Amino acid sequence: MEAAAEFRRARSPEAKRQREASILEAARALGRERGIRDVSLTDIAAAVGMHKSALLRYFETREEIFLRLTAEGWQEWSGALAERLRDAPDPGPTAVARAFAGTLAARGLFCDLLAHAPLNLERNVSLDAVRDFKLATLAAREPITEAVREQLPTLSDEGVIDLIATAVSLAGALWQIANPGAEVAALYRSDPRLGHAVIEVEPRLARILTATITGLVAGTDPAQG
Amino acid sequence: MEAAAEFRRARSPEAKRQREASILEAARALGRERGIRDVSLTDIAAAVGMHKSALLRYFETREEIFLRLTAEGWQEWSGALAERLRDAPDPGPTAVARAFAGTLAARGLFCDLLAHAPLNLERNVSLDAVRDFKLATLAAREPITEAVREQLPTLSDEGVIDLIATAVSLAGALWQIANPGAEVAALYRSDPRLGHAVIEVEPRLARILTATITGLVAGTDPAQG
Repeated sequence: MEAAAEFRRARSPEAKRQREASILEAARALGRERGIRDVSLTDIAAAVGMHKSALLRYFETREEIFLRLTAEGWQEWSGALAERLRDAPDPGPTAVARAFAGTLAARGLFCDLLAHAPLNLERNVSLDAVRDFKLATLAAREPITEAVREQLPTLSDEGVIDLIATAVSLAGALWQIANPGAEVAALYRSDPRLGHAVIEVEPRLARILTATITGLVAGTDPAQG
Repeated sequence: MEAAAEFRRARSPEAKRQREASILEAARALGRERGIRDVSLTDIAAAVGMHKSALLRYFETREEIFLRLTAEGWQEWSGALAERLRDAPDPGPTAVARAFAGTLAARGLFCDLLAHAPLNLERNVSLDAVRDFKLATLAAREPITEAVREQLPTLSDEGVIDLIATAVSLAGALWQIANPGAEVAALYRSDPRLGHAVIEVEPRLARILTATITGLVAGTDPAQG
């Protein structure tokens, strides 16, 4: 037993990195399948074929795993959104809103993570993990900010920050409302009084963000209201 | 023991109602104090001086208690917002945005509940409890819708629905970001690179909603973009 444990601890940095990647990939697959709320550390360990105690050598908590996936999600989304913004044929509030809505709605796991990050994920991890996460999201905003500025040169710095905050907050909230679990979804469809509870993320998000961007570009200032 | 159990079950409807109210009040107080994420059914039972098994005769789960508080929160906020909108001296997007932002930011527990409802609260309760909750929030929208229409007569039905959805989604998300727990809050203040993580709910919400309402009133339609 001791020799085997020694052997596992002596794994190369490359082997350790691969094991981490396997854990993250298992968490990603389970999260996509059932929503991250219902994925436990034990589920992830089972999916990757490790004992839970072995997995804890790589990540302290399930929240740390999902916070890492959220940071990766920001980085990946940032690149995709910046590219889509640069390719937009007809710059303006509608094109920018559609780029945000389309790229977010296409990333269900990321929307799920966005909603859970401030509520559930930042609360059961080390301060170092929170710091790393915040710096990663800060870095991911830069390519988005640059690409938005090219499309909407009159938008202020504060306006870009507000736009990104609004887009990710709404994407997280709308995705949760649109994906309530099978039983509740059936209830919504069966009771006509609950028709308002059935929503589609992308058109709703595009519509609201178009309005928000239009207003931000118009430079409305509450202090002058 | 049997006689005592019989006596408890024979409590009058009024006594039962009072006991329910005590449970809800204890949950409200604990939720305000530490955030609802960290309030368990055991905590609520202890605060109200009941055994957990006795509390389960009134509510099935902690989620059912907090979902009930969310429904009550909608009703109370709806009345306060409608009144504030009707009293606004200078109708227009800024006044409407400030009324939403001011009434939401003044209700921290409600903002906390708004963020948790679709993620965590609607998922561990009976379908009847979800149905009651959805019908309660639907009813609470009516006074808000009427009052918004008086202030902004050109806003479409869809525009009012989008405005309410945006306001509650953002209030929930921004409140969570603004109230990250003592340790993380200290980290944000100590590291200048994390200054962007420190936010104030009310001015931020007022600014974004002013923009959104301005755009909604302008009647921007993504289908024409």
